[in-house]
Amino acid sequence: MTLDPNQHLTFQAKFVEATLETLLATQALPDETVRPPRLLAAMRHGALNGGKRLRPVLVMEAANLFGRADDGVLQAACALELIHCYSLVHDDLPAMDDDDLRRGQPTVHKAYDEATAILAGDALLTLAFDVITGEAVHADAAVRLRLSRELARASGIGGMAGGQMLDLESEHRERSEAEIRQLQSMKTGALLRYACRAGAILADAAEADVDRLTRFGEVIGLAFQLADDLLDVEASAETMGKATGKDAEAGKATLVGLWGTDRTRNELGRLVEEAETLLAPYGSRAAILSALARFIVNRTN
Amino acid sequence: MTLDPNQHLTFQAKFVEATLETLLATQALPDETVRPPRLLAAMRHGALNGGKRLRPVLVMEAANLFGRADDGVLQAACALELIHCYSLVHDDLPAMDDDDLRRGQPTVHKAYDEATAILAGDALLTLAFDVITGEAVHADAAVRLRLSRELARASGIGGMAGGQMLDLESEHRERSEAEIRQLQSMKTGALLRYACRAGAILADAAEADVDRLTRFGEVIGLAFQLADDLLDVEASAETMGKATGKDAEAGKATLVGLWGTDRTRNELGRLVEEAETLLAPYGSRAAILSALARFIVNRTN
Repeated sequence: MTLDPNQHLTFQAKFVEATLETLLATQALPDETVRPPRLLAAMRHGALNGGKRLRPVLVMEAANLFGRADDGVLQAACALELIHCYSLVHDDLPAMDDDDLRRGQPTVHKAYDEATAILAGDALLTLAFDVITGEAVHADAAVRLRLSRELARASGIGGMAGGQMLDLESEHRERSEAEIRQLQSMKTGALLRYACRAGAILADAAEADVDRLTRFGEVIGLAFQLADDLLDVEASAETMGKATGKDAEAGKATLVGLWGTDRTRNELGRLVEEAETLLAPYGSRAAILSALARFIVNRTN
Repeated sequence: MTLDPNQHLTFQAKFVEATLETLLATQALPDETVRPPRLLAAMRHGALNGGKRLRPVLVMEAANLFGRADDGVLQAACALELIHCYSLVHDDLPAMDDDDLRRGQPTVHKAYDEATAILAGDALLTLAFDVITGEAVHADAAVRLRLSRELARASGIGGMAGGQMLDLESEHRERSEAEIRQLQSMKTGALLRYACRAGAILADAAEADVDRLTRFGEVIGLAFQLADDLLDVEASAETMGKATGKDAEAGKATLVGLWGTDRTRNELGRLVEEAETLLAPYGSRAAILSALARFIVNRTN
C-alpha cells in the first residue's frame, strides 16, 4: 500500500490550521490589552487561507522522525508558517508583485487596503517570534533561543527577505547560474531548510542528524524551486499555447531558462535520489518525508 | 551643577549609533551567505539617521540604575531601536502616512523605492529578533527569551502595530478619551514601557523594581505623547498662525484636542511628579532617568 502524500498533507494541514486559528483568536494574549479587530481580520485573511502548509508539515514530520509529536512542535511549525504568510501578504502588495488574487481569494490589500496589509504582514512576522519563544516549544530555554535565532536568520536580510530583494533586482537582468542559485537558496530555500532542521532540533536529534535533515531541507528546497520553474514554463505552454510563462514575461532568470526542461528534469531526478539517500539511515520511519520529497517534485500546482 | 539631558542623550546616542553600525555592517553574519547591498543600504538609511535614540538610551539608563552597563545592554537596546526604525520606515510609506522627508532626509521609499522600503522594514524587524536572542544580551537563556517574547508583544498586534492600526482608523472619527488612551498606550507607549522594563530585567533587578520601572515607562510614555500633541498644536500655532496642527488637519483625535492646552500642561506636570516619585527610592542614582523624564516633557522638537 503506497502512501498518498497529498492526503497526508491535507490531514496534517488541519492540525496546522487549527493551531493558527488559536494563535489568531479574538482573545488578546497576556500583555496585549486588545487586538484591533480590523488588523486581526486582515491577519486571519492572510494566514487562514487554506494553504498547503508544506513548511509546518515538514517541521512536524522531521520532529516525528526523532520521536516528538506534540503541541510544542505545532507551535514551532506555526511560527514558521506565520513567517511564510507574512511574506506572501507583503509580496502581493502593489509595490511588489501586485497580485489581486491568491488561491482564488482577494489578496489582503484587495480585501482590506494597502496600509492594513502592510501592518498585517508586520504583525504576522512579529507574532511568529512571540510563538517561537513560547514555553511549549521546548523545555530547554537554550533550544527555544536557538530556534528563534535561526528563524530570524532564515527570514531576514541573509535569508528570505534578502532573497526577495535579489528577485526584485533580477527582473530584466542577466543572472549567472551561481547568482540564481544564491537568490533561490535565500528566497525559498532558507525557510524549507529551516523547517527540516528545526524539526530535528525540536526533537533533540543528535547534531549529525540535525545536519542530515538540514541537507535534506536544502535538497528539497532546490527541488521545490526547479519544480516551480518547470510548472511556470509548462502550465503556460499548455494553457496559453506558448513556451514562456510568468517568469519569462517578467524577465526573471531561472535555472530552467538557462538549462531547458530536459536538463532540469534530470537534475530534479538527481535531487530526489539525494533526498532518498539522506533519509536511508532512518528506514521506513522516513517514508513520509521521502514521499513529501517526491510530492514536491511531482506537484502540479 | 545640573545635568543637561540633551548633552547626555547625544553622548549615549553615539554608543547606540556605533552598535547599530556594527549590526548593519556589510559583512554577513554566520548563517547569512550574503547581505544584498541594496537592501542593506536601505536598512542603513532607515536606521542610521541620527535619531534621538530615546528608547535605547532608556534601556541603557534603566539597566545602569541596577548596576549593568556593557555591550549586551547595548545589543538589547539596539534591538528595540531596530523595531522603532522599522516602524518609521513602514509608517512613512505612501499607503500609510506618505511622508517624503524624515529628519531632513528623503524617507527610505523616496531614496530607494517602495518595494525596497517594505523589505527594509521587514528585515529591520527581523534583525531585531536576531539581536535580542544573542548570547551577549544575558548569560541566562531564560532571561533572553523573556526579553525576546516581551519585545514581540510590545511591537505586535497588541502593541505598536495594533496601535498604528487604531491610529489609521481614528482619522476623521470621534474617539473617546479611553479610546485615545488605548491607542496611544499601544502605538507609542508599548515600546517606551518596554525600554524601561527591559533595562531592569537585563540588570537582574528584583521583580518589584521591574514593576516600578515598568510604571515609570508607562508614565513617561503618556508624557511623551501629551508633549508630542502639545508640540503639534503649538508649533503650528506659532509658525502657521493658526491653532490647529497636523493632527487636527488629519482629523486625528488627541487628548489635547479633548482637554485643551491648559489641562494638558497640568496633566504633564502631574506625570513628571509621578515619575519623580517612582524614582525616589533610587536617590541620586536615578538623576539621569529623572532628567530624561523632564526632557521628554519639555522637548521642543
